[in-house]
Parts: sequence; structure tokens; C-alpha cells
Amino acid sequence: MKRAIYPGSFDPVTFGHIDVIGRALRLFDEVVVAVAPSEGKSPLFPVAERLELIKSSLAGEPRLSVKQFDGLLVEFVQAENAAAVIRGLRAVSDFEFEFQMALMNRRLAPDVETIFLMPKEDYSYISSRLVKEVARLGGDVSGVVPAPVAAALRLKFGAVR
Amino acid sequence: MKRAIYPGSFDPVTFGHIDVIGRALRLFDEVVVAVAPSEGKSPLFPVAERLELIKSSLAGEPRLSVKQFDGLLVEFVQAENAAAVIRGLRAVSDFEFEFQMALMNRRLAPDVETIFLMPKEDYSYISSRLVKEVARLGGDVSGVVPAPVAAALRLKFGAVR
Amino acid sequence: MKRAIYPGSFDPVTFGHIDVIGRALRLFDEVVVAVAPSEGKSPLFPVAERLELIKSSLAGEPRLSVKQFDGLLVEFVQAENAAAVIRGLRAVSDFEFEFQMALMNRRLAPDVETIFLMPKEDYSYISSRLVKEVARLGGDVSGVVPAPVAAALRLKFGAVR
Amino acid sequence: MKRAIYPGSFDPVTFGHIDVIGRALRLFDEVVVAVAPSEGKSPLFPVAERLELIKSSLAGEPRLSVKQFDGLLVEFVQAENAAAVIRGLRAVSDFEFEFQMALMNRRLAPDVETIFLMPKEDYSYISSRLVKEVARLGGDVSGVVPAPVAAALRLKFGAVR
Amino acid sequence: MKRAIYPGSFDPVTFGHIDVIGRALRLFDEVVVAVAPSEGKSPLFPVAERLELIKSSLAGEPRLSVKQFDGLLVEFVQAENAAAVIRGLRAVSDFEFEFQMALMNRRLAPDVETIFLMPKEDYSYISSRLVKEVARLGGDVSGVVPAPVAAALRLKFGAVR
Amino acid sequence: MKRAIYPGSFDPVTFGHIDVIGRALRLFDEVVVAVAPSEGKSPLFPVAERLELIKSSLAGEPRLSVKQFDGLLVEFVQAENAAAVIRGLRAVSDFEFEFQMALMNRRLAPDVETIFLMPKEDYSYISSRLVKEVARLGGDVSGVVPAPVAAALRLKFGAVR
Repeated sequence: MKRAIYPGSFDPVTFGHIDVIGRALRLFDEVVVAVAPSEGKSPLFPVAERLELIKSSLAGEPRLSVKQFDGLLVEFVQAENAAAVIRGLRAVSDFEFEFQMALMNRRLAPDVETIFLMPKEDYSYISSRLVKEVARLGGDVSGVVPAPVAAALRLKFGAVR
Repeated sequence: MKRAIYPGSFDPVTFGHIDVIGRALRLFDEVVVAVAPSEGKSPLFPVAERLELIKSSLAGEPRLSVKQFDGLLVEFVQAENAAAVIRGLRAVSDFEFEFQMALMNRRLAPDVETIFLMPKEDYSYISSRLVKEVARLGGDVSGVVPAPVAAALRLKFGAVR
Repeated sequence: MKRAIYPGSFDPVTFGHIDVIGRALRLFDEVVVAVAPSEGKSPLFPVAERLELIKSSLAGEPRLSVKQFDGLLVEFVQAENAAAVIRGLRAVSDFEFEFQMALMNRRLAPDVETIFLMPKEDYSYISSRLVKEVARLGGDVSGVVPAPVAAALRLKFGAVR
Repeated sequence: MKRAIYPGSFDPVTFGHIDVIGRALRLFDEVVVAVAPSEGKSPLFPVAERLELIKSSLAGEPRLSVKQFDGLLVEFVQAENAAAVIRGLRAVSDFEFEFQMALMNRRLAPDVETIFLMPKEDYSYISSRLVKEVARLGGDVSGVVPAPVAAALRLKFGAVR
Repeated sequence: MKRAIYPGSFDPVTFGHIDVIGRALRLFDEVVVAVAPSEGKSPLFPVAERLELIKSSLAGEPRLSVKQFDGLLVEFVQAENAAAVIRGLRAVSDFEFEFQMALMNRRLAPDVETIFLMPKEDYSYISSRLVKEVARLGGDVSGVVPAPVAAALRLKFGAVR
Repeated sequence: MKRAIYPGSFDPVTFGHIDVIGRALRLFDEVVVAVAPSEGKSPLFPVAERLELIKSSLAGEPRLSVKQFDGLLVEFVQAENAAAVIRGLRAVSDFEFEFQMALMNRRLAPDVETIFLMPKEDYSYISSRLVKEVARLGGDVSGVVPAPVAAALRLKFGAVR
């Protein structure tokens, strides 16, 4: 049985992330979405709400779980007894940062493999940051995030319009 | 009659921006420079001063106007009845971010086309951020920004030297 | 009245090219698709057939014409009295080559502006080279090229399967 | 049981390829190295010799097999009943070409997933092309290719020195 | 006698920096490591401590000195009577920012040449930022920074674990 | 006394190359321009003519010499007792190929350092390949290559117009 970890801030989860999770589930027996608190990045949603938004967007898949992790990713991966870390690659600029992270993780834990998946090209331009920016200015993001996330964004930025 | 919008923070306007505006005026009947307040980025110049610096640097072109916009770019473009958004591309790193923005804008308003122009190669290394950094340290930026901007930067950072 | 030139080898024309042509027609009064013979690149289709495939794929647009050009692009642009050269940008690797070409053209003819448009993201991975490779191996390319091109490719590579 | 295909020209196989194969074997139950004839690229080694060089470099791994494939990669993947295509990513320039190929393959066969692995950074600069170039000029490539490949290259280029 | 300046924030110095310094010492008669205070970037270590960490990591090389510089880099280079600025290039994303800086510096001081060196590939993924992030989460960074730096990081983040 | 090697095909030499040579002469006591025959690339000018064109374009600099080299670059560098290999970097796409070459050379000869210089931004778009293409089509290349090269290109392609 092979388990994979899909780590990130997910502030908030987008259709790009959902697409990567679906691909990971086709390749692995179990997938754990691992949410980093990322307090240093002043997230829009507190980590508990980010976990809830992922769960409500992905209900009913028994091979998937959603968890918070607080320390080093590689220690979480080892504690979860996972074979691989999943990352989505959209653009050249992702590529270099992801490679630096993956090489550092490989040094810290040589047995943890990072594998890169490619989201659907329709989602290649969606980042959590851009979604928040558009939502803040009152734009309609219902085509790029799950319904619970769109609702949560409207609630956050409702006063804008 | 075709109108184009050239959006940005312009904090402050540089010869790179001026060069792109000149090229846009050769392709379109009217060009609107659209200044985003970008409060979240802690701009050096308040938006009103940025508008003034652009106007004083580009005086006397009747087909050009300079305006502030506050919400979503695509809504401003539609309100102005414009056919296109102009962006300058200098470097590969610009490219990816610009493409993400342009694809998101296309989703929000499919009839708004983004077109990319290439500034003169002499200006390929000029960014507003680098200009501010050099001016802050007392460097001479008069070769890369219009005279009113150079004067405004000297005023801001005069105490440094 | 503003006219734009869209140059290329078009060996053969793809939905990516068709998409860029549609965008150019929304921005300019007239668009000329300019086909380079590119004999040095051992094209699959002779230039006359490439012209025909473009015409049959784009029938009925009075503001569009399709022509062969044989020498320097900038001389063709000037002879056609055009304001701009249109190029589609799909990827970072396109970007640098396109910029080198555009800067060289600007040196040869400073009044000719190159503008870059972004094809629909669904077409971002389609290149004429990849289309030919897939068709040669018997793959179905009807989703990425116009029907007359798909038929011409089947005719070329029919003996393979 | 999950099977993965690792396709390429392998002209010749390098330590970079061997490293990727080892990583794939940790993630999948079976790995098939699929050698494309690539006649159009004027390979240095005929396909049969390339198959032999891979086999002799990787002897004794029962979960690995080495096969030639002649048509479309996705048809081979489906015939082999495999879940994924493995590709190694070394550099940004690989990235874009690999993504174009992967997106085209996804269109041809949506159920075939491409996953990208990262070779050891020591091998990030090794390409079959560079290995051949160095060997042709008499350089020592024994540190970057398996011993049988180094011997085969000495045999090919022996007359040079 | 030729002197080179190697500028940076060095917050903190890593084996990647040490590697570049060693290469610079092979090419130049004297090398000055020039530490920018970078107060605006909220450094982890105060500039005095960064200077000390570099000195204790590089003891005993008479042709090397370590100094703080406060204003424009090019003015420091000229005051030091140096022929060149040294920069390490690890990745494509470094490349563009470094080129913009180098072109701006060339405009400010045409006689100051910037030269780029390539660190050992083992260090290609090490950045001060990533080192701090891993150390903050309790990861072992002793393989990527000199011993005095590893000790200083343990002291800073000791309360974490 | 420090000597540097500047290798290339120089088919033909351009102002971009000349600019890099000038910069190398400011950093090193002696510079050797090393011309590779590159027969496999079907050069336009035979290697003897390429050597002549460089010499006639750079007459009168006693610290510069121009030589042909036939085998591995690193062996030539060692035979010349040189400290460094000079390469010009213009674009991101250069960057990766240059890094692969430099890392392979470092493996073959760890004591040979590769250093990268940045040509004047006006020359950032000039490649020998593009110069030949424009000259072949009858374009004026006198602004981007030395006078003897412009004359030689007119002679080669004179029959075109």
C-alpha cells in the first residue's frame, strides 16, 4: 500500500489543487492533504478553516484525509509512513522553487521522493494569491474555486461591494 | 476608434513605461494610463502624486489620458469601452506573472484582449523598484526616469546624503 | 485604418494559429497572414499547399488575406503598409527567441512594432512540429487542427497505419 | 499492482537515467523502460544496441523490463496496462518541452498520467548529447555513464585518439 | 594586482557562498566580501554578527577581507579600487534579477564589471532563506552551512524544539 | 599573470563577441580567442576565414591572440595554462546550456573555472545565426558586426539580391 502527502498552505484550496488531488488518488492508494499553518505569511483563512474548506470540497473519498502539520515536512512524511510528496507544477517559476525545496528535503530525508504532477491546463493560471486578489476586488471566482470556498470568500470580502 | 488601457502602479513612472506608452499610441487611437492605488504594496508616492508625475512627464499628447482605477481592471476596461489592455514585457520572469494575470482577466471578461509590447532594450533592466532602491542610496537616476520623477525622488530621499 | 501582419511557416496551420488570427482581427482593421517558404527547414507541405490550407480553414473573413513572402519580414511589412507584426506567445522558450527576432526587426525597421498575443490556454501546447509528429505516428490530431489540415495530414501519412 | 513506463531514446543511457529508474522502482511495482527508435534523429547506437546497453547496466532487477516501442507512446502505455509515464526533469528548458508532450499525451489518452521525477543534482548536467560530444573528442565519460556504455563509446570513437 | 568585491546580505553565509569565495580567490589577487546591512529585509542576524560569522568561517586566508558597506555598491567598489563584482548564479530565476542589477550598476559606473561564477552543483539549492526556514523548524542544516553558522542558528531557534 | 580563454564557433564574430572580448581584457592579463571548427554544424565560413575575420576586427591589441582548437576545450585550456574560460550570457536560454557545459567541463578538469560576462544590452539580441539569416535575405547587418564581417557576408550572399 502506497501513501502520498500533498502539502501546501491551501489559503484557500482552488480547482487547481483539487485537480492535482484527483490525479494523486489515481496513482496512490492513500493521499493525505497536509496543511501548513504558514502563520508567517499572514494567511487570509485560519488553518482550521482551511482544513474545513478542503474537507467540504472533497467529501466522500475514503482514501483521502486532510491534516495539519506543524514542523518539517519530511518529518511529517516519515511519521505518516508515506512514500512520496506530491507537488503540482504550473509554470517555470514554480519549477525552480519547487526543485530547491525538493532537493533540500532529499538531503534531510533521502528516502522521501518528491513527484511532480501537471494540473489541467485550464487551471494553469490559478493561484491562491490571484484568487484572493480578484475576490477582494469583487470579481467572480466561482469558476476557479469549489463552492464552499467561493462562499467563504464572499463572506470575507462582502463589505467591499 | 480603438482605445487601449495601460494599467500599473507607476510608483514611479520610468522611461520604460514612457517608451511603452509611445508604442501604444502608434497602434491605438487613444491610450488611457490607468493607475492602481496598490495600497497593499506600501507605495512610495501616494496615488495622486503618481498621477501628477505621469501627466507632467507626458504633457501635450491629446490622445492620452491618465486616470486612477480602484476595482477590478477588467471592469475599468469595460467602463472605458476599451479594446485592449497593454502590458510591457521585459524579462522571462515578467512573462509568467503577466500570463497568469491575462488569463484570469480573460476568464473574467473574454472580450478584453491583453497585448504585450517590448520596451527599448536600453530600458529592459529598469523597474520602479530598482529605481527607488538606487535613489534611496543616493544614486543618480536621471537617466532612467523623467525629470519630474527624478526631482520628486531627490525630494523624498534628500535627507540621505 | 490599421493593418497587421501575422508571419510564420504554418507547416501546417493549427487551432493555435487560428485563435491568434481571431484575436488580431478584433484589434486591427485588416490582417495579412504571411507565409514564409522556410525551404531550409524541409517543410512537410509546400508553401502553395500551406497557403491553401490556411485559406480553406478561414474562409469568409473579408478583412483577412493570406500571402507568401520571400525576403526580409520587415520589407514585406513596409510594402504592405502595415503598422504591426503579430506573434503568438505560448511559452517561456518562445519568449526569448521571439524577443531576439523582434529586436532585430526593430533595428532594421524602427517603425514596425511587434505585438504579442496570448492564445487560448487550451492551445498552449500545440506546435506544428508536435502535430506532425503525432500525425506521423497515426495519432488523431482532429482536435488541434482545422478539418482540411487533418485531412491533408491523413493523406500524407496514410501509409503509416 | 501499478506499472509505470519510462520512455526515451536512451542514446546512450546515462547515470541520470539510471537514477530516475531507481526512483521509479521505489514508487511503482513494475517499471518498463521504453526505447523509441528515433530514426529521424540519426542515433549513434542502433535501437537493439541501446536496449542491450540498458539491460547490461541494470541487470538483476526482476521488477524492471526494457522494451522497444514504435508508434505513439500513449498506445504503448495502454497496451502495457500502465498507470503512468515517468519523465526526469533536470532544467527549465526540459520543463516546457516535457509539458507540451505531456499535455498532448493527455489529450490523446486522458487516463495516462505523466509524473516528473528529479534526478540527483550531481547528474543535472548530464545529457546523452553532451556525453556523446565529450566521448567523440576523447574525453573520459566513465563518471557519467555505466561501464558497458563507456566501453561502447570507446569502441565507437576509438579512432579519434 | 586585481581585487574583486563579493557583495550580499549573507544572512547567514552558506557553503554556497563559501564555494563562490574560493573560486573568486583563484581568479583574483584579493577578494573583499561586502556585507549589506539590508535592514529593510528584517535580517535574522544583525550585520555585525553576519560579519563575524563570515570571518570565523573563513579564517586564515590573508587575501580575503570582510567589510560592511552602506550605500551604493558601485561607490563601495570604486572606493575599494576593485576591478569586478562577483555574483554566484544558481538558477534561472537568479539570472534575471542579477542581470537587472548588473545593468543598473553598469549604467551608474561603466568601469565596474560584474562577473558570474557557478557554485558547485551540490550547493545549487541552498539559499539563506531556505536554510533559515529549515533551521526554524528544527531541521539539521549542518551539511549546508559552516559550523559557526549552524551553532548560531541553533542558538536563535533553540526554543523551538 | 592570468590568462583567459574565450571559446566559440564565431561563425561569424559579432559586436556581441567583440564586446565580451573587451570586458575580458579588462579583467585578465591575456585573452585567447579559441575558435572551434564545429564542422558538424555546417558553418558558413571555414575555420581559417573565421580566424582571419576575428583578427582583422581586433587588430592592434598585443594582449589578445586568436587560435584554433580541435579537441576538448578543457585540454586546450590546460595546454594554454589558462585560469579561466570566458562565456557571454545574453538570455535565459543561453544560461542553461552554458551551465551544463560548464559543469561537464568542471568534472573533466576541476581546476578550470568558467566565468560569465554580460554583453552590452544593445547586443543582447545578436546571435551569429540571426546575423546570417538576415544577411542571407539581404538585410543590412553593418550595425551588428565588424566591417570585415559585413563585407564577407555581402560577398557570400551577394547573388541573392
